[in-house]
Amino acid sequence: MSPDDLTAYLHIHIPLTAALGARVMSFDSRQMEIAAPLAPNRNHRGTAFGGSLATLGILGGWSLLNTVLERQKLVAKIVVQHSDCEFREPVAADFTALSVLPEAEWPRFLTTLRRHRRARIAIETQIRANGRAVVTHRGRYAAFLESPLESPNDSFAPET
Amino acid sequence: MSPDDLTAYLHIHIPLTAALGARVMSFDSRQMEIAAPLAPNRNHRGTAFGGSLATLGILGGWSLLNTVLERQKLVAKIVVQHSDCEFREPVAADFTALSVLPEAEWPRFLTTLRRHRRARIAIETQIRANGRAVVTHRGRYAAFLESPLESPNDSFAPET
Repeated sequence: MSPDDLTAYLHIHIPLTAALGARVMSFDSRQMEIAAPLAPNRNHRGTAFGGSLATLGILGGWSLLNTVLERQKLVAKIVVQHSDCEFREPVAADFTALSVLPEAEWPRFLTTLRRHRRARIAIETQIRANGRAVVTHRGRYAAFLESPLESPNDSFAPET
Repeated sequence: MSPDDLTAYLHIHIPLTAALGARVMSFDSRQMEIAAPLAPNRNHRGTAFGGSLATLGILGGWSLLNTVLERQKLVAKIVVQHSDCEFREPVAADFTALSVLPEAEWPRFLTTLRRHRRARIAIETQIRANGRAVVTHRGRYAAFLESPLESPNDSFAPET
């Protein structure tokens, strides 16, 4: 799945992401970048609406977790359980959210998910605009395994 | 300003609120209720997208604070500084956000705002669907006074 494919998927299945103008720019097995233009996300002051920023944080962590689990051949339902968003300064430009997997917690998360079919993980997303870090979002997500592994050999395969 | 007037204002000046289908149902000097339909806020599972729920929480607290300060003849810029959102269960129906002013903190907030022209306050919003409390949002907002009081007699007028 390419970034454009993922963008199209999100716009169809989570219509608010289309209203945001959210666009997946890139992702790999560690991180994902999603951009959004200011215009559809403006507030009455012409800066970015806090709801748009928090939404991009929630979306970034969720999308990253989904794509990384898919790469691992794990089909899981992922739900956000908690969202914590710190707004540091007004955002008066287009913005970009970079979500990063927590390397230290990841192996244990995968082991727990495979063993108990459910696990939780926190994912941090930094939103930047005009070269500045403007918002920090921390999402806690729960994953519920829905499909068995494709083969036992995958069980503890390293990430690619 | 009626609930419908406020809804129209929000839809024009914060376009994401129109995408959400957010509609102000009622407000007074203590609380505000904003409703949103499930359809435009659905995710790929047919339940409410976490971003929509967090957004409604941020919006509810902000809108309540704005209208209550306006009633007090205070013109202030209000910005959300922090958003904390706990998602308790999936939301599979239209939902309603009830934001309530914290009575204990309110007098001190007003005094600080009038004296220092800036003050912070936390506002809790409960989102309900199908008669159940499904999401709790806590927003911390900063208010910056932009206009002087209309008359000294308003300074410590009780809320109406």
